[in-house]
Amino acid sequence: MRVLGVDPGLTRCGVGVVEGVAGRPLTMRGVGVVRTPTDAELGQRLVAIEQGIEQWLDEHRPECVAVERVFSQHNVRTVMGTAQASAVAMLCASRRGIPVALHTPSEVKAAVTGSGRADKAQVGAMVTRLLRLAAPPKPADAADALALAICHIWRAPAKNRLQQAVQQQAALHASKHASKGRTP
Amino acid sequence: MRVLGVDPGLTRCGVGVVEGVAGRPLTMRGVGVVRTPTDAELGQRLVAIEQGIEQWLDEHRPECVAVERVFSQHNVRTVMGTAQASAVAMLCASRRGIPVALHTPSEVKAAVTGSGRADKAQVGAMVTRLLRLAAPPKPADAADALALAICHIWRAPAKNRLQQAVQQQAALHASKHASKGRTP
Repeated sequence: MRVLGVDPGLTRCGVGVVEGVAGRPLTMRGVGVVRTPTDAELGQRLVAIEQGIEQWLDEHRPECVAVERVFSQHNVRTVMGTAQASAVAMLCASRRGIPVALHTPSEVKAAVTGSGRADKAQVGAMVTRLLRLAAPPKPADAADALALAICHIWRAPAKNRLQQAVQQQAALHASKHASKGRTP
Repeated sequence: MRVLGVDPGLTRCGVGVVEGVAGRPLTMRGVGVVRTPTDAELGQRLVAIEQGIEQWLDEHRPECVAVERVFSQHNVRTVMGTAQASAVAMLCASRRGIPVALHTPSEVKAAVTGSGRADKAQVGAMVTRLLRLAAPPKPADAADALALAICHIWRAPAKNRLQQAVQQQAALHASKHASKGRTP
């Protein structure tokens, strides 16, 4: 499974591609940051983010895009920009029919470090170890994007099992109703 | 001047096109709502908003797009959706090179009713009167989009005068420096 992780931001939008399956060593396929100038108009910055994300999708053809779920308990100004950058990332993926998954910052931290309250350095250290890199990816937004992708690969099997269980239950329910229908 | 006003929202995104200049009667060229199903995935909803906005841009070829500036003092969940829908509207306009203007809700209310704290009914009544409509546009999001467009047309001359003054000042400053340079 190849996943593009996106840590959304207007000034720095972290992007990282990880390939692998849960339970096996993972491989980094690419990491970087889409930057937009702080003095540009908001609309122009969103266009620059769209172009950047499109390039990453073109180059890496991910099967899924994992985006950080944005909450508004943080700084008000930052959150609006983050929400807008995340909207562009989701739009680019969905337009191509690529599934989008959202993970909260604490889900990501818990997935890679074991603690939902881990700091940036700890996340960076674990990403470096898990992907067998020579040094932590910089800036932190790039490391966070890789952590998002890792989190998604590791959480996906559990989610799939849950979906299968729900589908089996629904199928069972439907067949019961169908047999009832046949014996009125 | 033809302006597309956008009252951003994920479930209902109000759109309205107004043509005219400050000081003359204004004309409504179109009004409507881009809707997305609440049970669809977020990425799919953003794609639907993009398609809707693109249709309005194709059909009406506005010279400017006026979008409501989103604040986060409101309901947390709603605000994130509003920020994301507004990002899509700004992206669509900027991608075509159409200037985007942001106006706050109180600027819009003050422009059309004289009070920044006017309620929805008052805004609807004034939009109806100013555009000489038979009845207030429904839903309120559609009326708000028209109010945004009206606000932009009326505020634009003041902004242009301000820009001209700034440019004149800058030109004056530059010519002073240039003449200083010539007489060392």
